[in-house]
Amino acid sequence: MNETQLSEIYAQRSSRLTEALARYRLDALALNPGPTLTYLTGLNFHLMERPVVALFTPDKPPVIVHPELEKAKIEALPFPATTFPYGEDPTEWPAAFRRATQYAGVKASRVGVEPTRMRLLEFHYLKEAAPEADFVFAEEALALLRACKDETEIANMRRAVQIAQQALRATLSIIQPGVSEREIAAELSLQLLRAGSDAELAFQPIVSGGPNSANPHAVPGERRLQNGDLLVIDWGAVYHGYVSDLTRTFAIGKVEAEYQRIADVVEQANAAGRAAARPGVACQEVDHAAREVITNAGYGEYFIHRTGHGIGMEGHEAPYIRQGNPQPLEPGMAFTVEPGIYLPGRGGVRIEDNVVITAGGAETLSDLPRDLQILPL
Amino acid sequence: MNETQLSEIYAQRSSRLTEALARYRLDALALNPGPTLTYLTGLNFHLMERPVVALFTPDKPPVIVHPELEKAKIEALPFPATTFPYGEDPTEWPAAFRRATQYAGVKASRVGVEPTRMRLLEFHYLKEAAPEADFVFAEEALALLRACKDETEIANMRRAVQIAQQALRATLSIIQPGVSEREIAAELSLQLLRAGSDAELAFQPIVSGGPNSANPHAVPGERRLQNGDLLVIDWGAVYHGYVSDLTRTFAIGKVEAEYQRIADVVEQANAAGRAAARPGVACQEVDHAAREVITNAGYGEYFIHRTGHGIGMEGHEAPYIRQGNPQPLEPGMAFTVEPGIYLPGRGGVRIEDNVVITAGGAETLSDLPRDLQILPL
Repeated sequence: MNETQLSEIYAQRSSRLTEALARYRLDALALNPGPTLTYLTGLNFHLMERPVVALFTPDKPPVIVHPELEKAKIEALPFPATTFPYGEDPTEWPAAFRRATQYAGVKASRVGVEPTRMRLLEFHYLKEAAPEADFVFAEEALALLRACKDETEIANMRRAVQIAQQALRATLSIIQPGVSEREIAAELSLQLLRAGSDAELAFQPIVSGGPNSANPHAVPGERRLQNGDLLVIDWGAVYHGYVSDLTRTFAIGKVEAEYQRIADVVEQANAAGRAAARPGVACQEVDHAAREVITNAGYGEYFIHRTGHGIGMEGHEAPYIRQGNPQPLEPGMAFTVEPGIYLPGRGGVRIEDNVVITAGGAETLSDLPRDLQILPL
Repeated sequence: MNETQLSEIYAQRSSRLTEALARYRLDALALNPGPTLTYLTGLNFHLMERPVVALFTPDKPPVIVHPELEKAKIEALPFPATTFPYGEDPTEWPAAFRRATQYAGVKASRVGVEPTRMRLLEFHYLKEAAPEADFVFAEEALALLRACKDETEIANMRRAVQIAQQALRATLSIIQPGVSEREIAAELSLQLLRAGSDAELAFQPIVSGGPNSANPHAVPGERRLQNGDLLVIDWGAVYHGYVSDLTRTFAIGKVEAEYQRIADVVEQANAAGRAAARPGVACQEVDHAAREVITNAGYGEYFIHRTGHGIGMEGHEAPYIRQGNPQPLEPGMAFTVEPGIYLPGRGGVRIEDNVVITAGGAETLSDLPRDLQILPL
């Protein structure tokens, strides 16, 4: 993309932000580094011990407080910004924040902040610099801003899914009894990079075998696969900053009949969830469609999490596909459908796909087989 | 390590925490997921939209508020803990936090929090649950807790350095004019995993060539190397959760004389910084030793950052090797020495090593050549 196209994208996003601020009666938005800042500016920083904050208001270019040594990044922005750099001595930092909030005019304003992103560090400097401002959790305003993806974003997500699928296929050949979870996770991470993933993965692959597969968020460990195990692999790639997040479950050799049974139920639940997804349907209805299949099969109490979560620049973002969420789906919304059944101490099955709402329904971006395949191949 | 050894490690760390709380007159510590929580419990969570908080007090086992679906991780802890799980519906979460803070007895206490880690999300639930508590920034108490590494920790860091060095050596063969920064970064990430790094890197390699090398925190881009470029590579591995962080600078073919000159100055500054490091010396003296070499060579204004930062479970942690930091070095403290000279619009040089303070001096963990090597080899 050339600089003109980039400035156009950021101008569009900036005007969508201005609308969102107006709708939620916010005078300004204060962001620290994270996906929303990247979405609005392209800026990318690690969260470190030095605070970085950008202030967005409807009538001025963004105002950015940042360490002097990040100057080059800020100067490369394809749009104007007003910057307040500070040096290495933390006693200088409050003054930079005071000048920035004064310049941005956020003194006695309603200022939106991101509760899942902003740390007490940045908030402390902001609050000291603008003690009369009213800081408001703005997750709802911001969720809507990023939830509906444009075509470039969807193309990136589609590519992130393809990269993930290619990496898993390349990893299957090493999976057999005696191989450890950690070895499989390392090989899969390597294959993700080889297949073209951005170097910084959104999350480390989950590879959990045997009893560990009954823990949805297990960390890959030293346990070695055994015949009769279920094996859950939950992994994803990142492409131009956009994430994929898939799960497939495998049988190591012959498994007990109930494992095949729960794999069939979860496959049906996954299909039912995806089939329910279309514009106007509430998130909770997609959850219900998947959950009903599992409940009717008698495993309701073993489906211990929501059916899915939004996906985009973050591995988890709005919309959340859970009971009690009335948010209607809109074209461009992207999310996971990932029902599971977890039998404590024995094993679990989860099947996860990535779905994008289209004008007339939904597109599933992932197409790896969903039935319980037996490994080694 | 077996379970008994693990419980001993956590018991030791817990009693060091109790001392630190007493020294800083804190009644409790509230942590969200991050390195300090991992240090004290071994627990590892991504920061997500669901809040996880652990409360530590001198007289009770840790109290943990967590999503139901993380139960298996908590049950696997090698020590007792009292848990307050909650379900998928966010309206349940405040009650879980109220019960946890009541049980922990932190109602009207001084409760330490980590400003660089705790988000407004967790803080919001904590404050609602214990409105009379006085939340205090505890970075100083916690920095001391983790800054002095034990032998197991240092062994992990030594291995993380070896893995990083092996990965860089394996990457050098692809570096030549025409190769892009992004391609080198991808190959280096892949080689890090192949050499045995944990899959989740602490940071994405910085690979910056030509004018980009004048930006200390550049993000690898599409620019292709040209003859006459300086090339800065800043990378690290992770081993058992412990980080290495190294930088070397290369010349692509023949470079102008001033580039060789600044490379020599930075190499001397790096050596001077490392030579100054020993127990009892203040952080600012190590900074001064490195900075003086660069200033005396006439490049002081182009060394635009501090000389280094602590390193361990995080890529950046205490002690900070900067002007104005009187903190004396102690055996077990580990940090980077990474002076640099950055000529805007032209190019930069940085040379970074990892150092651990010993009883009698300091050990440099890294030993790759530091002089300006010419590539392709």
